[in-house]
Amino acid sequence: MNWTDPHLERREANFQPLNPVRFLARENEAHPERTAVIWRDRSWTYGQFNTLAVRLAELMRGEGIVRGDVVSILSRNRPEMLAAHFSVPALGAVLNTINTRLDAEAIAYILRHADTKLLLVDEAVGAAAIEAAAEAGVAVIRLGDGAGQGETGELLSGEVDPDARLDERAIADEWQPVCLNYTSGTTGNPKGVVYHARGAFLNAMGNALSLGFGAGTRYLWTLPMFHCNGWAHTWAVTAAGGTHVCLDAVEPATILDLVADAGITHMSCAPVVLYMLLNHPKAAALKGTERRVSVATGGAAPTASLISQLDAIGFDLVHLYGLTESYGPASIGELADDMSDDDAVIKAEWLARQGVRHKTSGDIRIVDTETGIDQPCDGVSAGEILLRGNTLMAGYHKDPEATEAAFAGGWFHTGDIAVREPGGAMRITDRAKDVIISGGENISSLEVESVLHRHPAVMLAAVVAMPDEKWGETPCAFVELKPGGGVDAGELASFCRAHLAGFKVPRHFIFNELPKTATGKIQKFLLREQARGYGQ
Amino acid sequence: MNWTDPHLERREANFQPLNPVRFLARENEAHPERTAVIWRDRSWTYGQFNTLAVRLAELMRGEGIVRGDVVSILSRNRPEMLAAHFSVPALGAVLNTINTRLDAEAIAYILRHADTKLLLVDEAVGAAAIEAAAEAGVAVIRLGDGAGQGETGELLSGEVDPDARLDERAIADEWQPVCLNYTSGTTGNPKGVVYHARGAFLNAMGNALSLGFGAGTRYLWTLPMFHCNGWAHTWAVTAAGGTHVCLDAVEPATILDLVADAGITHMSCAPVVLYMLLNHPKAAALKGTERRVSVATGGAAPTASLISQLDAIGFDLVHLYGLTESYGPASIGELADDMSDDDAVIKAEWLARQGVRHKTSGDIRIVDTETGIDQPCDGVSAGEILLRGNTLMAGYHKDPEATEAAFAGGWFHTGDIAVREPGGAMRITDRAKDVIISGGENISSLEVESVLHRHPAVMLAAVVAMPDEKWGETPCAFVELKPGGGVDAGELASFCRAHLAGFKVPRHFIFNELPKTATGKIQKFLLREQARGYGQ
Repeated sequence: MNWTDPHLERREANFQPLNPVRFLARENEAHPERTAVIWRDRSWTYGQFNTLAVRLAELMRGEGIVRGDVVSILSRNRPEMLAAHFSVPALGAVLNTINTRLDAEAIAYILRHADTKLLLVDEAVGAAAIEAAAEAGVAVIRLGDGAGQGETGELLSGEVDPDARLDERAIADEWQPVCLNYTSGTTGNPKGVVYHARGAFLNAMGNALSLGFGAGTRYLWTLPMFHCNGWAHTWAVTAAGGTHVCLDAVEPATILDLVADAGITHMSCAPVVLYMLLNHPKAAALKGTERRVSVATGGAAPTASLISQLDAIGFDLVHLYGLTESYGPASIGELADDMSDDDAVIKAEWLARQGVRHKTSGDIRIVDTETGIDQPCDGVSAGEILLRGNTLMAGYHKDPEATEAAFAGGWFHTGDIAVREPGGAMRITDRAKDVIISGGENISSLEVESVLHRHPAVMLAAVVAMPDEKWGETPCAFVELKPGGGVDAGELASFCRAHLAGFKVPRHFIFNELPKTATGKIQKFLLREQARGYGQ
Repeated sequence: MNWTDPHLERREANFQPLNPVRFLARENEAHPERTAVIWRDRSWTYGQFNTLAVRLAELMRGEGIVRGDVVSILSRNRPEMLAAHFSVPALGAVLNTINTRLDAEAIAYILRHADTKLLLVDEAVGAAAIEAAAEAGVAVIRLGDGAGQGETGELLSGEVDPDARLDERAIADEWQPVCLNYTSGTTGNPKGVVYHARGAFLNAMGNALSLGFGAGTRYLWTLPMFHCNGWAHTWAVTAAGGTHVCLDAVEPATILDLVADAGITHMSCAPVVLYMLLNHPKAAALKGTERRVSVATGGAAPTASLISQLDAIGFDLVHLYGLTESYGPASIGELADDMSDDDAVIKAEWLARQGVRHKTSGDIRIVDTETGIDQPCDGVSAGEILLRGNTLMAGYHKDPEATEAAFAGGWFHTGDIAVREPGGAMRITDRAKDVIISGGENISSLEVESVLHRHPAVMLAAVVAMPDEKWGETPCAFVELKPGGGVDAGELASFCRAHLAGFKVPRHFIFNELPKTATGKIQKFLLREQARGYGQ
């Protein structure tokens, strides 16, 4: 058929930009009485939350914010932070969410580099940002302390304005940017990852379907919203018409209380948060519960021991993989349908996999870094993970070189190394910088770490390369012990020797609390620096 | 920020055409062992079903089918029919699903008008089509009788080819057509509604989220897949990773058995099917069940009595509204969250509403047909429903005039009349005037009238809808005979049966002078009133 007939071309009636603002506008229409947000001892219906979002948009419009302007925000996971994910794009503006745990210098750099026009600040976490904004002459809106104090306390007022409408047409082009996310900067200056509206819409849809969000979802915000816009769950839970349960801080006692009493169905967090939960006395009360909570985690593969302990308190793990550049989740590793009764060791093997593309992700390749040829599904041939699809950034803000390098050859280069298991599921063997090359042999730091994690006294371990005159590099282990955990370097080395090839056994053990990012990711670059010192 | 920097423009790595083929390809990767399709006493895993779809694609490629070609299909709801929804787009070709209840003449017209290159035929329903194809020199692939008989019985073979892959890149542009659906609209000849890939992908996503499809979904195919591609559920259930339960025919006993024994969670059908179920002796066995089945229905609003009878056997109703031009569902009317204990009268009032836009629909307006101004949400001011969004057809195949008329003013004109309730939900008060909806099938009154006008004794005929408890509506013909024209109802019915599909033949004939306006236009609203009287 001749489908290039002019009358069949796209037109305003059948082509509208994909746009995450529509999620909130639609749920407000569909069930304004349903609970959208819970925070501390208060809750907001979709009608009330929509009104809040419109008020926030009006406030920003009053400050002169127009299409293309960048609005930066430093905030804990509170209702205005969530609302900003709709209010800012509803002005055609760009939301730049800043990691609240960065130092003053980094915050000032990001505010400046993003060309910030306006700063929204949660006063509990934003002192440094307010100072930096004052120096740069950037306008500031203070969100107050959330207890009715502060200049914008009235945003949280519960009354519904039935005529309040977000502008769903402010996104005139689905390629328009809606968010900026600065990568946490393992090397050099942080890069500003530009999210287009199309990707935000599609990753939200994909997350909702992949993780099973629906009208009955109660999503607990253990993951910071400043991290890839909360892996796009800010939009996904809203699209599903679920309830956001906001948290000021990641406190095990609060989390366990909410899980027990507030009907939490889903949460997302780094494994370190899960260890904190398990080590808290309140975890015992959840034992034998029939309620299941789906917990999405990324980073380190969960161990069999972690999986069985979580299982006992009603937590089911899902393993996600992604990067800031992929709007968070790009792949998902799950148990097979019939594995609920299998033992934790089998589950751990399965959940060590980052799995396959999630529902709206595009193509994933694993290619030999030398030849660029796809690796076979043999479980051993490692290669770099390449991504292509609709949920990848537009590029790096004001950084054409880094953008072109990242997208070289028509694929996004993750820098992460993985194998494909028979059947096609991917399993990461090393984050790009985590490979230790000793005497010409590659050592996977993840492999060494997973052995250390099996030792009963170890809470958390990180292994990095230490320079070595003879071998080039050797593994150096940084270990955080469990409270009361008594073990020394000699005992850990023996334990490793029993489970690893000799060249993989760490030559050095350092016992200390591990430095972590705001999202609980271990800051390996700091450990690498430290290890360089030991090695010299 | 300056987001028009060239390095931020879309590129192959971050922009890929939205495309429903990806749904099957992804689920095959994610869980090849999960049951994808059940039919009669057999089932297919996602791996097996993917293999079937690839084999079907190869078979069509062997017949010379390439990008842009139209493949027509006449089939019951069987695995190959479902597979064609992926196999045909995976060749870049266009799937034209033909209503199996049409008469030979209409089928021949559609085959010709669509420029059909290849016809797939389920032999149980396709005799007329095979004949028409032979006359037009169109190649035919027979799907056999499904019992291993017929030339393509081997398509259904269960063995998995792990390397079998659908081509996810055959859709090179998301505006590319993937389907044609002929509609009997208000004018005589059916119009070919062109579905673009973007809309198919997005309506599937929206359906899955709006209706709550997930991994545990068992969708019973009571709705013909030839009807708007099964309201896009062919793709939606697959996207969710659910199970399709195929049905050869809508037989109450079979349906009730499957609901009782096969864990059905969702189905869609016209109210007439629901009445058939309730009137069947097997329905009694379901009384008091704890299992709930979500039943999406369209067309006539369900009565309080229907709702409470269905409730007693575990069926929860959802009211959808849409047209062929909107890929099926554009709006959804549901009970409010807290209504489960309310009585059937209250529920009926609520479910009489077509509700609000569904998850991926765009904007809905209800405008005064004279002034074009939006009607207030007062529950009484009626106006025409206009639609705009991403799930509207590209246009009518080879019909620029009708396309421009449908999209006049930047909105799709449904021709349906509705009011907005306070709160914004829409409730249809009048269907587009000349369409009669009988058992879920559209009947063009003009088509029936034109047949009557061909009878030598008929001077003037007008056909309108008559309410019918079982079918919703049936056609009622008002006939003015020529002077001296001697013909009775029986003879006219036979004449109609010779030229029309059975369901289009009027059930009532009234012989009289037709009421006309001063300018000679037939006053159909008077006839409708009269027919309402006969129908009660």
